Amino acid sequence: MKMMFHYNWAVRDDWYKWCEGVNEEELLASRTGGVGGILQTLFHIIDVEWSWIRLLQGKDDFQENFELYNTLDKVIELDAKFKAEVKEFVLAWNDEMENRILQLPQSDGSTVTFTWGEIMRHTLAHEIHHIGQISVWAREIGIQPVTANFIGRGLFQNEKV
Amino acid sequence: MKMMFHYNWAVRDDWYKWCEGVNEEELLASRTGGVGGILQTLFHIIDVEWSWIRLLQGKDDFQENFELYNTLDKVIELDAKFKAEVKEFVLAWNDEMENRILQLPQSDGSTVTFTWGEIMRHTLAHEIHHIGQISVWAREIGIQPVTANFIGRGLFQNEKV
Repeated sequence: MKMMFHYNWAVRDDWYKWCEGVNEEELLASRTGGVGGILQTLFHIIDVEWSWIRLLQGKDDFQENFELYNTLDKVIELDAKFKAEVKEFVLAWNDEMENRILQLPQSDGSTVTFTWGEIMRHTLAHEIHHIGQISVWAREIGIQPVTANFIGRGLFQNEKV
Repeated sequence: MKMMFHYNWAVRDDWYKWCEGVNEEELLASRTGGVGGILQTLFHIIDVEWSWIRLLQGKDDFQENFELYNTLDKVIELDAKFKAEVKEFVLAWNDEMENRILQLPQSDGSTVTFTWGEIMRHTLAHEIHHIGQISVWAREIGIQPVTANFIGRGLFQNEKV
């Protein structure tokens, strides 16, 4: 589990570096699929990761507005801020937390129930999926995307994931 | 771990259903990013998953040729064949296997070393990434893609993943 989060964070950092070599117009351009465009999809990834972790902790979520974070620097800054909180939670993760229950009230008055383990995996898959979308857009603007490889990143250090 | 494989298999099945409603020309059309196009990327996903599992088992891999599997039916058939083998391995997975070593000889005579746990996560991320790419292409041809949600699939059954 933890190792997949480390993977996602490393891939995200690689994309920030990639973004530095791309002009802002391309980063902000509206694209088909994903969420808005390249930068907004990165913003969405960090917002969603943080929001789920907040929910598991019983803390308030609030809807971030991309208009306030529409530069690479601001997204990186927000990521650093959110990741401090997310990382603390993820690094403290243990098997006992897997089957804890998150109850989410729905707008129709009903309640949906998830396990914490389910939410964590949802969050992991969410990022990888959106990064796949960004990789297509990268090719469409003619720039080689960041590798999605898990192997070759030196992530595995005998830690159970 | 197991649950993420179940997720990937379920998403793949959803995409096969999705493909049934799309004409073959679109499925085979060459696209930017990913591997060739929609059907070839699905073929690539199942080939790569199977190939890594084969390598972990010390069995021969062989390069599948998409030209021999370039219809939806053939891809689904290949998936069923490969998945039987993959599933047997994945369902028998246990923590003790995490740190087993896979040594891969390189073309320059050197050897690269991975843990089995690393390879399994690489395989998982590989599929999710490519599915993200396919989802952009789906939007580009104007058809709603399969959801990438992990939650809401009833995957979590108190099984450690």
